[in-house]
Amino acid sequence: MKPTWRLLIACSDQEGLVHKVTGVLYRARCNVVVNHEFADPGSDRFFMRTEFTGDINREAILDELGKLLPPQPFVRLIRPGKARIAVLASKEHHCLADLLTRCAFGELDAETVAVISNHDLLRPFVDKFGIPFHLCDHTDRAREDQESAVLQLLDEIRPDYIVLAKYMRILSPDFVHRHAGRLINIHHSFLPAFIGAKPYHQAWERGVKVIGATAHFVTEELDQGPIIEQQIISVDHTHGPKDMARSGRDVERLALARALRLVLEDRVFLNGHRTVIFD
Amino acid sequence: MKPTWRLLIACSDQEGLVHKVTGVLYRARCNVVVNHEFADPGSDRFFMRTEFTGDINREAILDELGKLLPPQPFVRLIRPGKARIAVLASKEHHCLADLLTRCAFGELDAETVAVISNHDLLRPFVDKFGIPFHLCDHTDRAREDQESAVLQLLDEIRPDYIVLAKYMRILSPDFVHRHAGRLINIHHSFLPAFIGAKPYHQAWERGVKVIGATAHFVTEELDQGPIIEQQIISVDHTHGPKDMARSGRDVERLALARALRLVLEDRVFLNGHRTVIFD
Amino acid sequence: MKPTWRLLIACSDQEGLVHKVTGVLYRARCNVVVNHEFADPGSDRFFMRTEFTGDINREAILDELGKLLPPQPFVRLIRPGKARIAVLASKEHHCLADLLTRCAFGELDAETVAVISNHDLLRPFVDKFGIPFHLCDHTDRAREDQESAVLQLLDEIRPDYIVLAKYMRILSPDFVHRHAGRLINIHHSFLPAFIGAKPYHQAWERGVKVIGATAHFVTEELDQGPIIEQQIISVDHTHGPKDMARSGRDVERLALARALRLVLEDRVFLNGHRTVIFD
Amino acid sequence: MKPTWRLLIACSDQEGLVHKVTGVLYRARCNVVVNHEFADPGSDRFFMRTEFTGDINREAILDELGKLLPPQPFVRLIRPGKARIAVLASKEHHCLADLLTRCAFGELDAETVAVISNHDLLRPFVDKFGIPFHLCDHTDRAREDQESAVLQLLDEIRPDYIVLAKYMRILSPDFVHRHAGRLINIHHSFLPAFIGAKPYHQAWERGVKVIGATAHFVTEELDQGPIIEQQIISVDHTHGPKDMARSGRDVERLALARALRLVLEDRVFLNGHRTVIFD
Repeated sequence: MKPTWRLLIACSDQEGLVHKVTGVLYRARCNVVVNHEFADPGSDRFFMRTEFTGDINREAILDELGKLLPPQPFVRLIRPGKARIAVLASKEHHCLADLLTRCAFGELDAETVAVISNHDLLRPFVDKFGIPFHLCDHTDRAREDQESAVLQLLDEIRPDYIVLAKYMRILSPDFVHRHAGRLINIHHSFLPAFIGAKPYHQAWERGVKVIGATAHFVTEELDQGPIIEQQIISVDHTHGPKDMARSGRDVERLALARALRLVLEDRVFLNGHRTVIFD
Repeated sequence: MKPTWRLLIACSDQEGLVHKVTGVLYRARCNVVVNHEFADPGSDRFFMRTEFTGDINREAILDELGKLLPPQPFVRLIRPGKARIAVLASKEHHCLADLLTRCAFGELDAETVAVISNHDLLRPFVDKFGIPFHLCDHTDRAREDQESAVLQLLDEIRPDYIVLAKYMRILSPDFVHRHAGRLINIHHSFLPAFIGAKPYHQAWERGVKVIGATAHFVTEELDQGPIIEQQIISVDHTHGPKDMARSGRDVERLALARALRLVLEDRVFLNGHRTVIFD
Repeated sequence: MKPTWRLLIACSDQEGLVHKVTGVLYRARCNVVVNHEFADPGSDRFFMRTEFTGDINREAILDELGKLLPPQPFVRLIRPGKARIAVLASKEHHCLADLLTRCAFGELDAETVAVISNHDLLRPFVDKFGIPFHLCDHTDRAREDQESAVLQLLDEIRPDYIVLAKYMRILSPDFVHRHAGRLINIHHSFLPAFIGAKPYHQAWERGVKVIGATAHFVTEELDQGPIIEQQIISVDHTHGPKDMARSGRDVERLALARALRLVLEDRVFLNGHRTVIFD
Repeated sequence: MKPTWRLLIACSDQEGLVHKVTGVLYRARCNVVVNHEFADPGSDRFFMRTEFTGDINREAILDELGKLLPPQPFVRLIRPGKARIAVLASKEHHCLADLLTRCAFGELDAETVAVISNHDLLRPFVDKFGIPFHLCDHTDRAREDQESAVLQLLDEIRPDYIVLAKYMRILSPDFVHRHAGRLINIHHSFLPAFIGAKPYHQAWERGVKVIGATAHFVTEELDQGPIIEQQIISVDHTHGPKDMARSGRDVERLALARALRLVLEDRVFLNGHRTVIFD
């Protein structure tokens, strides 16, 4: 069996790009398994994701691509493998437990290398999985202090992705900046509705008939990052905020798990503050 | 066959209301077909909708209910029948056409008695159905002027409900006030996301993965009225604003048609700025 | 705080039942929190579920109800509490893991008292939760033999409900008979489509655009028991049977978890081979 | 503005097909707007749909493609345009009315050239749209007789597609054979559940919690043709067969309208008894 590769390209659009890129792979006798491309008429950007098998000279391929692509392309040519993720959590268990289980059974192509929390509540559960649990308490402590403890841990751990699984702390712009593109959050509303605190209370106040959850990359503006996945669920007048929270947990874990699968399989491209997703 | 009645009650909550109300109907030898009740723990309001058949003395029943219900109840005891609706439209056909068809074939228990529009575009279609079409042009005309022409028409027509089927004009507080509780709008987003103009453009800009439509009562604050029905549909990065608008039309007509059915069957109660819906 | 009760009634329909039953509670000075009733015009059966608080004489209430209800009613008057469930599993982890997690964190009002499996694969995971894991191997063993080992375990455990969380063995009519009304299965299709083995392969063969999962009570006829909950998910031509299985796992765990919540909260009534669900 | 073209290819799979086909278009200085391809690992078939603009020599392009594609490819190179559709209906109005409206307003890229029905009921509605209505009555008449009247009409009309919009007659194998690939039906269940007559009654009998609708190509086996689109909707124990039919009408019209849009935009390929859909 020849090894499997993923080729990811994002660059300014130009005629013939699909022809040229597939030509490189064809001449290298690679076998394309699946191919996705998208040219965004708004941004004039071109995106391509190709899965192929082949005994290739990686450097030679990258070299050839570099010559035919427009200036300053984003190009990655990688072998699929387990990513290392760190999970930030607070008191709610459901997203964390779902991720740990999915990683444990290989449903997500990732290894959870650490759980960091500002509460000690979930430690016993995390311990069951043999995953290091780090408490970064926030009580009687300056905001910056607690955050820099988290940052220091992340510096040691060096995860590929940091998943905010109902981490109830707002990150500073500096934190976000240092981990740009690596931070994935689950927000418990169908954004942009109900930004900020207590979205289920807001949803109940407003009397909506659907609630939802949004998995998104974190940027410096709160709840404004590029959306990866949204899931919704119906509610009615009998649902108070607590009932909405209970129903919502199911879409939260699902939205986050799907978003993570997409990210881990390199299916998600950033296109300004939007995403291009090849699934 | 005995006649069918609908009893609608909204009042402050009190113990034993279901027992007392059903007692009135039981003693009047009515046959309850279906019964819904809801006590809102937030507002301490009680809501009840009962469908029953029976040869009743309507005044006597209302009298008896008046004695046992808490002070200042909302009570209606009605025979189901066709409501008279006026539709306000602009240039988009899809919600209007859907309503006219549903009314024509009895899918909605209503008669469309007039279509009022600020454009002449949909006249030929409305003419097919033999329904009076009134043009209230807005070009070269003060906002108040055009609106008062609409209001005058409505004064003559006296519809039970006024449906804003993609009517692209903002109503004045006075208009809303005069027809409070009678105005049903379809907004092309899952409110409260994307209030105001061009929601599909806003949705595309934000990069959401679901879009939706919201049917709601109109109040003086734009797009803030009590929500009756919401429908959503998935989109992806290949959808530009036009594609979203095309997909969205299907949920717009559906959300509006369902909301109207609920309203026409007297299933919708106002509970502050929320709704209680017995379906 | 007064204690909370659940009153469940199923009987032949008769006029005035709601009035009479609520009267019993009203005279006992109970406070009805929420009330659901349904009279099925097809079967002429009446169903009622009431949650109330009150210091009651349970026997007296049951006595009074017995006098006013039609002959041979089903009546239960219970205090909510944790049910004891046994889970039957084979090799797939996802439904089992979801249930164990939900029970561990109190999302489901149940205690998992045992996991029984015909494979040893999931033992390490179950061990993490400190729940007894029983292997009833089927290799080199008569079908009846393996089943009677399971039955014997269940006789000792005496669970309130037995959850078949992807248990890949068909139960004998005798097994089903002995645990009638207690057996809840998750089938990986939207029944009645794709009864029997390998539903995802069947779905792929047929080229459907939606797949689903069905949680249902088990009866003697395979996959024909009363349906409690169904969840669906879209698929397209790029999904092979394995992709469908992966997508399907998410609706399987969700359908089963929701069904269990409904059952554990005593919201599910049997109505012939259908269910009445008050949610 | 250069003209727009659609290139559709289906053939046995082979390495480098995307590269080769896009090469033809690149050398002809065409501008690819959007490109979809799929290689089915099961059937070893390759499918491709490309939208491009360009001043081309159509014959030359087809010639070049013929040389580089595997033997016996399916190749179409067409300019988008309005298709001519004939609608077969019986007594139910909703799918027919939806199609006529969508065609009238250009929501579907088609012209309805005829409505043929075995009942006269929908004539007045069809007349409003100025579309020829043909009655092929079936009362007191042999099945073959009625069908051959329909066939004769279709021979005269020569539609591109024949839409069975709740046409309640089973077509003979000969009929299907003569119009293979042109016949699109809407069945009121999520097939393969509830094949045949009265699917909503069947659904109610079985006690399902979701119902649906399926748009599919018609083949000689009843309700077994390749599925184009499926839509579902939740129901509960309060829904009798009539309520299901009412709810179902909304998904029927939607599933059929979506399927037709996909077909009319040449997005649907047959892949054995499944479909490949590029949307």
